[in-house]
Amino acid sequence: MNHFFKVMGLEQVMGLAPGFLAMPLETVPLNGASTRILGQDIVADQDLPSFRRSTMDGYAVHSGATFGASEANPAWLRIASTIAMGETPSFSLASDEAAPISTGGMLPDGADSVVMVEHSEPVDEATVEIYKSVAPLQHVVDRAEDYRQGQEIIKAGTRIRPQESGVLAALGMTDIQVFQRPTVAIISTGDEIVPVEETPVSGKIRDMNSHTLAALIQEAGAIPLQMGIVKDSRDDLFDACSQAVAQADMVLISGGSSVGMRDFTVDVLSDLPETELLLHGISISPGKPTILARSGNKPVWGLPGHVVSAMVVFKVVVLPFLKKLMGKQDWADKGLVIPAILTRNVASAQGRTDFIRVDLQEKEGKLYAAPVLGKSGLIRTMVMARALLEIGENVEGLEKDTMVKVLPM
Amino acid sequence: MNHFFKVMGLEQVMGLAPGFLAMPLETVPLNGASTRILGQDIVADQDLPSFRRSTMDGYAVHSGATFGASEANPAWLRIASTIAMGETPSFSLASDEAAPISTGGMLPDGADSVVMVEHSEPVDEATVEIYKSVAPLQHVVDRAEDYRQGQEIIKAGTRIRPQESGVLAALGMTDIQVFQRPTVAIISTGDEIVPVEETPVSGKIRDMNSHTLAALIQEAGAIPLQMGIVKDSRDDLFDACSQAVAQADMVLISGGSSVGMRDFTVDVLSDLPETELLLHGISISPGKPTILARSGNKPVWGLPGHVVSAMVVFKVVVLPFLKKLMGKQDWADKGLVIPAILTRNVASAQGRTDFIRVDLQEKEGKLYAAPVLGKSGLIRTMVMARALLEIGENVEGLEKDTMVKVLPM
Repeated sequence: MNHFFKVMGLEQVMGLAPGFLAMPLETVPLNGASTRILGQDIVADQDLPSFRRSTMDGYAVHSGATFGASEANPAWLRIASTIAMGETPSFSLASDEAAPISTGGMLPDGADSVVMVEHSEPVDEATVEIYKSVAPLQHVVDRAEDYRQGQEIIKAGTRIRPQESGVLAALGMTDIQVFQRPTVAIISTGDEIVPVEETPVSGKIRDMNSHTLAALIQEAGAIPLQMGIVKDSRDDLFDACSQAVAQADMVLISGGSSVGMRDFTVDVLSDLPETELLLHGISISPGKPTILARSGNKPVWGLPGHVVSAMVVFKVVVLPFLKKLMGKQDWADKGLVIPAILTRNVASAQGRTDFIRVDLQEKEGKLYAAPVLGKSGLIRTMVMARALLEIGENVEGLEKDTMVKVLPM
Repeated sequence: MNHFFKVMGLEQVMGLAPGFLAMPLETVPLNGASTRILGQDIVADQDLPSFRRSTMDGYAVHSGATFGASEANPAWLRIASTIAMGETPSFSLASDEAAPISTGGMLPDGADSVVMVEHSEPVDEATVEIYKSVAPLQHVVDRAEDYRQGQEIIKAGTRIRPQESGVLAALGMTDIQVFQRPTVAIISTGDEIVPVEETPVSGKIRDMNSHTLAALIQEAGAIPLQMGIVKDSRDDLFDACSQAVAQADMVLISGGSSVGMRDFTVDVLSDLPETELLLHGISISPGKPTILARSGNKPVWGLPGHVVSAMVVFKVVVLPFLKKLMGKQDWADKGLVIPAILTRNVASAQGRTDFIRVDLQEKEGKLYAAPVLGKSGLIRTMVMARALLEIGENVEGLEKDTMVKVLPM
């Protein structure tokens, strides 16, 4: 057992995350790449688009031929061949010509803009009147206007959103290098915990944390591995931890909230081969009794047993480490933090970072953060909450009507 | 072809969504229920917790026996049997007794609170000194303090977050009734579109929309079904649509941005059996040339071909309909709308709702929305954007430094 570890501040804990390496890479098909973390920089190997395209239905023209055109004084142009969709025009456009073109069509050589069909009227089969002048490149997307060959488009470590999938498709990338998704093992501990399918006798409760944590892991884009429930036995916990470390890339041991159970967990972690204890307690509330060890490149966490504490610790402490493993470049980012108006005074102890559950309410166009009251053993308070409010360790409390920033969950 | 349809406003379009029914229900295991939409109201069939639990390590006591206790004037209590985790205490606590208990342990009859171990000191094996008084129910979670039997916990139509998974686990629900996930077919149209694995000759481009839309559908929690690319042929489009309507719960036809192709799509939709055209154009930008038909209970959409327009229409128009199919109670909600400060003037036409792509930047604790400029044919503008700014149809534009609300994406 290691008694030398002190409680660390939240920032200090985050300083441990860079010590863990990102997962290895793998190649997935484009259709399976959505929400994955890019493992390669994406550079345009071609101009996008590769030709000048129309963005309107109308006539491809030399913009110069339309200068000064108006309803009262239309420009007369000769109608050239119609441009077929998906084909390269076989002709160059003379300066007094207009070629019928559809949205997405390729402009012929010589044409630099498109007159909208609404601003034109054929006079006969050979001639069209143009009622409005167009500027060079108007109603077209020019070659390379989206991306120029050689241009850096997306950095490794970026989460692939729908728009990034679109770019990868445009570049013809059918196979994408991404970081492997880490597997996160969950061990639930405690003589009082029974599996969900059992009816607990008085004194026992069903295992909530395994399921809450599995859902959080999945939401983060990793793979949960439920290892079941371990009774308060040193040998059983040691065996379960050894198995978990062998099978997973990160381990969460949940439930050791009592002092005895915590010592127990620390004990087992110290005995695991090549395992180093990094952290024994964080100055946050809820979530103080959090333990972190490193087994090779694998973070092994001892999480508090109260369901709310475990969720909060996952969100604010475990998640950045998980993102680091996942290869996310912005693993330290808290994500989108939302300004809201606090609806009541909130007390907070100095010297620790407090996380307050809040509901979000919109009234007359303003967003309000309403603290949800209740003990950290009550899942109800999380069901009622839609965000977390962080109160820094040097802040003694916040007053009603203060503008605060909250983290949705 | 139907010429009687007018362009509708966004609100009017949303008024069509209640006409579509939610998907049928199915039963999934608890582990697979995360992110799904609940198909049943969840009512507590038991008290949670079912007994009075300690939230601290210490001594279960009668709070009355500690009144007035202090360092200077401790209360002396007789040490009763230690309470084993997960077991029902076999004794009642006398008013002058204190029973050692761990976090999560069940209080014996008679005990109404827990003294923290930090506020106690055993004098000998039989006696403990208590240095601090506790109030009734202090450091315990009382029976039914989370939920009382019969209490309504979660409504049907709610998305199952990690905390809801926790509640379902606590109730012992191993099988959960959820709405089936709708399958959404994607048909890409246009002679200029080639599959991603092909190298397009000049005049053609790769199919971006199929992949962007598939990712959006997946992100929404539905199942994308890519039907491939259909050339500009009435018969081919009719066949593809018939197949799509047979196989999927919603159909997206992407790519008909030219007037000709739009007429074509309307034509095909009008000829599909039992299909009614509901909408032909929306007064939004980008995204005006959007078509909606109803085939039985299945919405069939004609989406604009420009990749940005298609994404915006999906987000602001298609998604609420998809959520309606998915059974979401709050399908009409835009989700979390975030206040931000606009970094520059933005023009907007009256009589239509504009959607401006914005990047979000945090500076000195404030969130700024910086409009991303560029044509709606440029995927780059979506890669640079992190949110959409909606400008209502009665607003002519917004000035720099205005507080606006944006929709993350």
